[in-house]
Amino acid sequence: MVHEPNNWGRFGPDDQRGTLNLLTPAVVLDALRAATTGEVLSLAMPIRGATSSPAPTTVPHLRGRPLPQHFMSVDGGDYAAGARPIGEGLCVADDALVVTPHGTTTHMDALCHMWSGDQVYNGHPAARVRSYGATRCGIEQVGGVVARGVLFDVPRRLGLDHLPAGHRISADELAEIATPRPGDVAVIRTGWPLVWERSKEEYWSGQPGLSAHAGRWLAERDVSVVACDNAAIGGLNARGLADETLADDLHLVLLHRHGIHLIEMLWLEELGAAGRTEFVFVAAPLRIEGGTGSPVTPLAIL
Amino acid sequence: MVHEPNNWGRFGPDDQRGTLNLLTPAVVLDALRAATTGEVLSLAMPIRGATSSPAPTTVPHLRGRPLPQHFMSVDGGDYAAGARPIGEGLCVADDALVVTPHGTTTHMDALCHMWSGDQVYNGHPAARVRSYGATRCGIEQVGGVVARGVLFDVPRRLGLDHLPAGHRISADELAEIATPRPGDVAVIRTGWPLVWERSKEEYWSGQPGLSAHAGRWLAERDVSVVACDNAAIGGLNARGLADETLADDLHLVLLHRHGIHLIEMLWLEELGAAGRTEFVFVAAPLRIEGGTGSPVTPLAIL
Amino acid sequence: MVHEPNNWGRFGPDDQRGTLNLLTPAVVLDALRAATTGEVLSLAMPIRGATSSPAPTTVPHLRGRPLPQHFMSVDGGDYAAGARPIGEGLCVADDALVVTPHGTTTHMDALCHMWSGDQVYNGHPAARVRSYGATRCGIEQVGGVVARGVLFDVPRRLGLDHLPAGHRISADELAEIATPRPGDVAVIRTGWPLVWERSKEEYWSGQPGLSAHAGRWLAERDVSVVACDNAAIGGLNARGLADETLADDLHLVLLHRHGIHLIEMLWLEELGAAGRTEFVFVAAPLRIEGGTGSPVTPLAIL
Amino acid sequence: MVHEPNNWGRFGPDDQRGTLNLLTPAVVLDALRAATTGEVLSLAMPIRGATSSPAPTTVPHLRGRPLPQHFMSVDGGDYAAGARPIGEGLCVADDALVVTPHGTTTHMDALCHMWSGDQVYNGHPAARVRSYGATRCGIEQVGGVVARGVLFDVPRRLGLDHLPAGHRISADELAEIATPRPGDVAVIRTGWPLVWERSKEEYWSGQPGLSAHAGRWLAERDVSVVACDNAAIGGLNARGLADETLADDLHLVLLHRHGIHLIEMLWLEELGAAGRTEFVFVAAPLRIEGGTGSPVTPLAIL
Repeated sequence: MVHEPNNWGRFGPDDQRGTLNLLTPAVVLDALRAATTGEVLSLAMPIRGATSSPAPTTVPHLRGRPLPQHFMSVDGGDYAAGARPIGEGLCVADDALVVTPHGTTTHMDALCHMWSGDQVYNGHPAARVRSYGATRCGIEQVGGVVARGVLFDVPRRLGLDHLPAGHRISADELAEIATPRPGDVAVIRTGWPLVWERSKEEYWSGQPGLSAHAGRWLAERDVSVVACDNAAIGGLNARGLADETLADDLHLVLLHRHGIHLIEMLWLEELGAAGRTEFVFVAAPLRIEGGTGSPVTPLAIL
Repeated sequence: MVHEPNNWGRFGPDDQRGTLNLLTPAVVLDALRAATTGEVLSLAMPIRGATSSPAPTTVPHLRGRPLPQHFMSVDGGDYAAGARPIGEGLCVADDALVVTPHGTTTHMDALCHMWSGDQVYNGHPAARVRSYGATRCGIEQVGGVVARGVLFDVPRRLGLDHLPAGHRISADELAEIATPRPGDVAVIRTGWPLVWERSKEEYWSGQPGLSAHAGRWLAERDVSVVACDNAAIGGLNARGLADETLADDLHLVLLHRHGIHLIEMLWLEELGAAGRTEFVFVAAPLRIEGGTGSPVTPLAIL
Repeated sequence: MVHEPNNWGRFGPDDQRGTLNLLTPAVVLDALRAATTGEVLSLAMPIRGATSSPAPTTVPHLRGRPLPQHFMSVDGGDYAAGARPIGEGLCVADDALVVTPHGTTTHMDALCHMWSGDQVYNGHPAARVRSYGATRCGIEQVGGVVARGVLFDVPRRLGLDHLPAGHRISADELAEIATPRPGDVAVIRTGWPLVWERSKEEYWSGQPGLSAHAGRWLAERDVSVVACDNAAIGGLNARGLADETLADDLHLVLLHRHGIHLIEMLWLEELGAAGRTEFVFVAAPLRIEGGTGSPVTPLAIL
Repeated sequence: MVHEPNNWGRFGPDDQRGTLNLLTPAVVLDALRAATTGEVLSLAMPIRGATSSPAPTTVPHLRGRPLPQHFMSVDGGDYAAGARPIGEGLCVADDALVVTPHGTTTHMDALCHMWSGDQVYNGHPAARVRSYGATRCGIEQVGGVVARGVLFDVPRRLGLDHLPAGHRISADELAEIATPRPGDVAVIRTGWPLVWERSKEEYWSGQPGLSAHAGRWLAERDVSVVACDNAAIGGLNARGLADETLADDLHLVLLHRHGIHLIEMLWLEELGAAGRTEFVFVAAPLRIEGGTGSPVTPLAIL
């Protein structure tokens, strides 16, 4: 096939782009100053893949998506059943994961994930996104994100537990909370995951999200990443689809036209409760060559 | 099966332990001071899973381990072949990953990964590590690691490109470089991944690693994590196995007896070249419930 | 681990048992006489695994089971997008399948699939059924089934399109249709898969199946296999579970106590319409060492 | 995506083609007469997927191909470790399989597996072979094969255990053994799998196979299937590739130009030893919609 020879471990190839370019070392240093208490919060939902149980269906996900599968290839049960340890008595447990991150887990989108026409972000040919991975704009181009995070806790501002499904967050609603600086990670809380425990059907009945106008407002502020606890940054209708035209589609506005990476399906409840608008945001996708995205565990350092 | 009801998003259950407990907010705040230039380095090897090509075999791995598989479930090739975009013209690429991290990728070991006798770390019954995941000491117990990293670049100290396969790093060799403080992440460079490009067979002929004495020395210094660019923290012999007795096995010394998490198969060449002994180390495993480990992209903030 | 050395290709180890033992060559020869027209019907439902589409959810399956995933690792779209053919111009498409057969596809159960107490079929220790496969009673023990098939088309007999969810087929209902001879494959049509196209929810509201008495009647007739178009041979209640006590559980009666293999989730509509009670039945599971079952495409030769 | 609505269970769509069309019921009936003793032999190699052991590497396969992975999602070890049975005491074992059949298992090639130019077999556009499966010429188009098998045991004829790696079987070598009739399955034994137990490296040093001339001779005899115990019907050179030009490539000659299905990597040792040239051959691929092939367990009824 067409993979080039070994280039693992060599970051910074000519065509590397995106978040890391935005975040110069000076910006990173500045972002670290947002940490004041040192408390660390995980912003990830669990990957619950126990395959012969209904467990995988108990975590919020988009309907019809293939849920994660997690298998133990050797475990404590085998030793209980008489498996012989290694050597003098060393026991090992080992496992495997099958995961399709979009719509199923807390994940980061690569710049090759969505486009319109023949080109992905920055004019790269979409035809280079093939069965054996994207040779342009894959998730491995993102080494990591270390930036100031700014939390837009919209329902809290509005005195709600969560936004209603039809709510499309306006630019004004964001501006009233904070104005991000270039390189910041805009973290948007809708509270929608709280609906899951009440009713899956309600969770699937639509989702609140950013309006196109709010997306453009964030892009104009030159944020590096938009991260949200909903599944698609923009809202979803009852059929699980975005309603916007191509011009207004949030993935096209942010990912395709501005090279702003997206992180979706975060768990923001503890962060929201902490009452902090600024903090250090860190996320590092798996270095999946040619991947359209990666499951990720973002951290907030308060 | 026996999974408990939904508890996603609730960190800090009674039995949560390990790194996060060690690293109090005060230690985290202190660790962040180790950043001086703001440069961010990824310490991960790529996950190269293109399934119909020899690509997966080109990344360092232990012989005989199942290599990652990466599949595109829809891609740019499909649109080139005539697939109809969504709605007015939205194109999407989507993918899936099959991964068995131990021995194949940069990964973090959970406290349930190795033990001897009937108990994993801290007396939890090994019999709770079952086919549907570990209900004790799974990788999801580690929210994230934000700590000071201390680089022990042993070959550089010795004037070598990489340690020879038979080298077992002594406590003195570590102590000559630095003395980690409680909560630090000890990052050990052997340089062994450089051998891969020269010869896979040589890479598999053995591996340098920590001696048991060095492992104990680190445990006594109360480090939170030991991270290394070799595959097993300790060394490997020509058959790909550890030579130590149970008393001296590095996984048992660190993981099993002291609850010190391990990160293996890092890529440390740029970090070594940067010449920095102290930096901020961040790693956040995927929140795989009951997982024995997770692929991970650790970051060094210089 | 504990796998024995290579023994592929050597059928008939001492502990081989089940269908093949029952079917002596003389019985096979006799069974072939049941073919009168030579028409061949497939009795399999499709494996529809297209991962980024709702396609996998459109095939009858038990709720909550992980659906098959089918990935192309290289395909025609890649060549349309510019991938270079091999050599002078050879194009290849290649793919992978992830499948969990029970409850999702037409499949055959191995004798290790269900038991009670500490022993699987024939007194073999259940503790030998471990994470790396069953070293006793795995599906690879069944080389293949070539036998006379006897169709029990119960709804047709009763003048119904399909049996109602609560119907438990009695021994008398079977006996009125035919009396199988030793070694025969009893093929039971309930018509329940027809319900799927009308309503998934109705399909999941329960399932008709054999009564324990009917199961015992078949076991007494010494059939080699019981094959059915429902998901569990016996019926299911609204919660998707069998209602029988351990003594009457159909899997225990047939598989566990009598070593009668089961084939489930067949598609029998064409066979039913053909109006033939006797025919040649052929099925050959994949030779998955230690497997609890296998997806299978059974054939009826009329 | 573009899958059409449910059509499972409906065989014989307009574009169905290949083996089944060739084998009219009269030919099937005639083929069944080839059974004389009723002995049934499996012609499949095992699928040995135990993931944390070297077991998968012990079965013949092409170098660099992803080997099968077999996982138990619940097993006897879990019950030994204390897992609670269902209800009064029902225990269940369940599993999953990840398999890429080409080059790794006994498998059947679909007509979409190889082509040159823009069209697969019979002028269907190769652009319809996409990431979510082939909508033309997928393996699900083959319901099953019931035909007379004719064994060409070339090494036995030549007084050899197995053919040497460089041997290309001529049409004359076939003709001296037998002349197949239209619809027959030509089963070609090279004995090459015997080399595996002696040396993997020798197995990978090349493979004997059919010459282009022999392939054309079989196509002219109008066989329905060519089945062989090597990996690619034609021979392979030391780099694991076919040496023929496009005009002579065995896959193009048989699969692409004549619509003759191929079955590869059979285990033919017992069949060869049985000394029978004619027998009943039965194979039924999994009904994987859009699949490029399927693992299969072919049977010989002697």
